[in-house]
Amino acid sequence: MVNFINGGVCAAQGFQAAGIHVGVKTHAEWKKDVALIVSDVECAAAAVFTKNVVKAAPIRVDLQHLADGKARAIIANSGNANACAPQGEENAERMCAAAAKAIGCKPEDVIVSSTGVIGQRINVEAIEEGVPALYAALERSDAASDAAGHAIMTTDLVKKEAAVETTVGGKTVRIGGIAKGSGMIHPNMGTMLCFLTTDCAISPAMIKAALLETVGVSFNRISVDGDTSTNDTCCVLANGLAGNETITAKGPDYGAFVEALKALCTELAKRMASDGEGARHLITCTVSGGASEKSAEAIAKSVISSTLTKAAIFGADANWGRVLCAMGYSGEEFDPDKVTVNFASAAGSIQVCAQGRGLDFDEDLAKKILTEHDIEINIALEEGGACCTCWGCDITYDYIKINGDYRT
Amino acid sequence: MVNFINGGVCAAQGFQAAGIHVGVKTHAEWKKDVALIVSDVECAAAAVFTKNVVKAAPIRVDLQHLADGKARAIIANSGNANACAPQGEENAERMCAAAAKAIGCKPEDVIVSSTGVIGQRINVEAIEEGVPALYAALERSDAASDAAGHAIMTTDLVKKEAAVETTVGGKTVRIGGIAKGSGMIHPNMGTMLCFLTTDCAISPAMIKAALLETVGVSFNRISVDGDTSTNDTCCVLANGLAGNETITAKGPDYGAFVEALKALCTELAKRMASDGEGARHLITCTVSGGASEKSAEAIAKSVISSTLTKAAIFGADANWGRVLCAMGYSGEEFDPDKVTVNFASAAGSIQVCAQGRGLDFDEDLAKKILTEHDIEINIALEEGGACCTCWGCDITYDYIKINGDYRT
Repeated sequence: MVNFINGGVCAAQGFQAAGIHVGVKTHAEWKKDVALIVSDVECAAAAVFTKNVVKAAPIRVDLQHLADGKARAIIANSGNANACAPQGEENAERMCAAAAKAIGCKPEDVIVSSTGVIGQRINVEAIEEGVPALYAALERSDAASDAAGHAIMTTDLVKKEAAVETTVGGKTVRIGGIAKGSGMIHPNMGTMLCFLTTDCAISPAMIKAALLETVGVSFNRISVDGDTSTNDTCCVLANGLAGNETITAKGPDYGAFVEALKALCTELAKRMASDGEGARHLITCTVSGGASEKSAEAIAKSVISSTLTKAAIFGADANWGRVLCAMGYSGEEFDPDKVTVNFASAAGSIQVCAQGRGLDFDEDLAKKILTEHDIEINIALEEGGACCTCWGCDITYDYIKINGDYRT
Repeated sequence: MVNFINGGVCAAQGFQAAGIHVGVKTHAEWKKDVALIVSDVECAAAAVFTKNVVKAAPIRVDLQHLADGKARAIIANSGNANACAPQGEENAERMCAAAAKAIGCKPEDVIVSSTGVIGQRINVEAIEEGVPALYAALERSDAASDAAGHAIMTTDLVKKEAAVETTVGGKTVRIGGIAKGSGMIHPNMGTMLCFLTTDCAISPAMIKAALLETVGVSFNRISVDGDTSTNDTCCVLANGLAGNETITAKGPDYGAFVEALKALCTELAKRMASDGEGARHLITCTVSGGASEKSAEAIAKSVISSTLTKAAIFGADANWGRVLCAMGYSGEEFDPDKVTVNFASAAGSIQVCAQGRGLDFDEDLAKKILTEHDIEINIALEEGGACCTCWGCDITYDYIKINGDYRT
């Protein structure tokens, strides 16, 4: 039984957070740009990172810091990705060292993350100078999680934060998280930035297994623009303060924890898709009757990634031909003559294609359905019993506007 | 020695063409919508088609008609793709039968092609009624090729037509073609519609080999929007009237022919990318120093397909970080610390990244360079000696406008 609760990274016991402006973002002094998340005690820690061959400097540093499966804190900035940038790793290490000095832990126990423009030297001096104030701002509150959540935003319009509660081994366990998404979102392993905290007692090996399993069915099932970032990171800290018997193997406790972790990450993933750069619609595409879950996932992902389908949804155009076209180039085999497609939203549901052929349908109703914010594209195949849901967003004038002049 | 000459599908000896309005496009009576290309004599014929699992009805029909490697004519319409449409194959066959009756050949000797909206029944009656007028309009002239070229356009702004002349076995051989592109362009084998005619004497087996070889290095190296269409078709008719000794094997004659075919198809492919839906820029991305041609191609294709890179070019923003990011998720291995990137155009050339790190560069000059219509992104790796060029276009407000409401 998983329940959503208020809060984010401070929802679990023993975590503090803060977010302030130190000057990485030079064009908007009122915008927070550095976040800090600290556990009272050492945590089992795991992270998944982008599969992009071009990996940002913080990721290279984190791979070393996470080698022992332990961490105490996360420092993250927006405004500069520290990717392909001069002195990248040196500066990422300096961020860790500054945080470690304030907290009183080893630099190796700090995870570092960056997001923003690629290729420019990060203003690490501003961060170093700001860390004492950042540390002083630490709080164990929803407001503190909110501040941290804001500090990692770039073109995001909405802060993404959520928390869940479940029972593991008879103890109440909480997991909370903050995330940022918006552009360059087509995760291939980890994703954008997402920081999760939990008080569950769980071994480094099992928290890693839980994270991998979860990311595969949540963040890896969304796409905003097909661009897999150089900085994708999803990191979880588990400090064990819930007092449950430490999870060291798969079993009921692990199952309960993963169920909660998946519920949380799916919610955060959907919010990322919904707040995709310039987006006006959240598109939920479900493929049922697939030959396998992998096949259903590939088809659903192809549909939500199709620029033409995204443009059709922007135009509230029930252009199901583009849906079939995108299914067809997914790389998966299926019988196009046995495809059913339905568009649905709070305004109703309409079947537009059966047996791979167009149906006469009420264009006015279709327009009404597609004018809602949350749109479903439901696809039924006759290949087998597998099902998968992926999330995306439409492509709009604003996406072009935002990305036609992001750097300058 | 390959020379570009005037004309299109009528440039080679023994070919006639026509293009008229019959009523498939109902909203614009002045827009031609059916084209016919006829050879005086039987031709060796070959075609490559989309790899999309969802194949339009004309493609299913053509696969049968081309089984013997022979054809006389091509009938093609715009305004309706005859894909996922009721009575699709039946109606495609009816188009062939109507053309065959007028020409006096077998329906199996006619190739049929369609482009336009997916999922609606094609108005085959209008085509059947129009064929006598279409046949009567046949001419052996540049104007006739021009009419056929216009009749296959959808959202294309510019007609694509080109012709070349070379010498094969001591005889002058000509090859000409018309093509349409614009949206749903991310060819994976054949591409959009492209019809080629030649008077070269060549066997069915060798014309097929030549076409496959050529498509791989021309049309398959462009992308407009990442969407591989259900109707992609590239078809060539070779009627042998040039009088050269029939090419039946690889050798100097085959080499001369393929060189000319590649020059022609590369030119048509570039024109398609340049006239991508809503595009303001042709982007030419060349990767040198690649581990293999395949690897260089995958990297270049990833760059020209990146929505974020396309948006940056639209904004004349020298955002090379997005170029590196797109290279990184291409699926190819390379050392990111040994990458050099340069932007160039008629306005100059500027290096923006060396050893995978950003360089200080003149932003004003960069802006000037990126304001030109034809933009080059030149990438040097240090993996090997292979090189590949791919072509794409920027993504603009107009792309969203065109595709937000194409169907209605």
